[in-house]
Amino acid sequence: MCQLLGMNCNVPTDIVFSFTGFAMRGGHTDTHHDGWGIAFFEGAGVRHFVDHQAAVASPVAELIKRYPIKSKNVIAHIRKATQGQVALENCHPFVRELWGRYWVFAHNGDLKDFHPVLDGPYRPVGNTDSERAFCYLLQQLRERFGAVAPALPALRAALAELVRGVAAHGTFNMLLSSGTELFAHCSTNLFYVVRQHPFVTAKLSDDDVTVDFSTLTTPQDRVAVIVTEPLTTNEAWTGFAPGELKLFVDGWPVEGESV
Amino acid sequence: MCQLLGMNCNVPTDIVFSFTGFAMRGGHTDTHHDGWGIAFFEGAGVRHFVDHQAAVASPVAELIKRYPIKSKNVIAHIRKATQGQVALENCHPFVRELWGRYWVFAHNGDLKDFHPVLDGPYRPVGNTDSERAFCYLLQQLRERFGAVAPALPALRAALAELVRGVAAHGTFNMLLSSGTELFAHCSTNLFYVVRQHPFVTAKLSDDDVTVDFSTLTTPQDRVAVIVTEPLTTNEAWTGFAPGELKLFVDGWPVEGESV
Repeated sequence: MCQLLGMNCNVPTDIVFSFTGFAMRGGHTDTHHDGWGIAFFEGAGVRHFVDHQAAVASPVAELIKRYPIKSKNVIAHIRKATQGQVALENCHPFVRELWGRYWVFAHNGDLKDFHPVLDGPYRPVGNTDSERAFCYLLQQLRERFGAVAPALPALRAALAELVRGVAAHGTFNMLLSSGTELFAHCSTNLFYVVRQHPFVTAKLSDDDVTVDFSTLTTPQDRVAVIVTEPLTTNEAWTGFAPGELKLFVDGWPVEGESV
Repeated sequence: MCQLLGMNCNVPTDIVFSFTGFAMRGGHTDTHHDGWGIAFFEGAGVRHFVDHQAAVASPVAELIKRYPIKSKNVIAHIRKATQGQVALENCHPFVRELWGRYWVFAHNGDLKDFHPVLDGPYRPVGNTDSERAFCYLLQQLRERFGAVAPALPALRAALAELVRGVAAHGTFNMLLSSGTELFAHCSTNLFYVVRQHPFVTAKLSDDDVTVDFSTLTTPQDRVAVIVTEPLTTNEAWTGFAPGELKLFVDGWPVEGESV
């Protein structure tokens, strides 16, 4: 199994603190050493870093920890290979373009007998069940909505249905973003916390690091962090229900049809 | 105008030496300070780094210079904005997927009145003439060949025709690779050198750096480097003819129909 980390904010925020703890699980406090990756939206653009080395040993991960890239939407992944060999093309997150926007996707879990017909423009480059699922989702969205992106409620409804179909094949914890929103689906393990005013001092579970967010933020800042296992020992993480698809916008989970 | 750097090799090779000189032009020995980018194929996967900071000031460029990523196909670009604002989504190289392979593209030049109908699956995310041209090329290739990649000679012939059409709109020096080959088209400025046994000591034009390739290579290694302006003062660079599309495979320009 792998681990997921997502961040959705109302102002561009750096992920150095959360990534530092998360990256420790890539071969140090946990056994996810078959590669890692992270993608940051910056406006419409994406910075995409993948490495088939363990995150703890990767010079690129070292750069991420030192260089505070600010982003409103980030998706990261550390991999323990279940399907597909250890190779760069199998590292999450994956990136494709649909409707003139980049889409970033990462998956934790294992899909059995999931071989959808991919006869549209999205074909896997590697050989993971995850990239197949991503290509399938984009193919179906493009088929349903044609050349023009739908409004967010319609997109959410379509994704809820599509994701349910994929999850019928196994474990499908996943994060998906096109730069303004972040979708998170839970089959088994996913937690989130919203960091907002008044900010607290947080302590990482995986490393001897604390940070006082109140010194780094303004009272208007809001940051949702979504992760496979809680990253800190002194924040109130909320568990997703199995089968739940949440939509985060501006650092906040959007309920029901209220998008 | 921008500058291009490409590398095509018969064995995975690091580009640290050539990139070091090239990056100096990103704000130091030349004025290309509106961002930069580089993409390395590693097997079927791609490492893609883009930054809207000048290459001389970028911590990511610093990483590339220190971390010898080995690749058989590399495309790099430093940008001086002519069309499209300075933003991450406008940094070359651009990456898309076609036929289950990633395609990497970078362009130097300026296209006038180039607004092709993009009604297929490839839409620009940013607002450069270059990304429009890339989307157009992929759309046309997909339209001609359908779901299955053609053999290299057919691909070369199709690209020669498509590129001629694009170049009719202005200056279209470009590099394009899907990981096993590298296409290079010259409108105005493009040079290449093939480094092979017996290897020499090369001296960068843009920095006080020399390297003795014979200490870093085996006699079987062959590396083609393609660039807007020659990078070294003591190697024999060959200029492209205007309108010429060259195909490089295994570190060598493939002539005529002999692919």
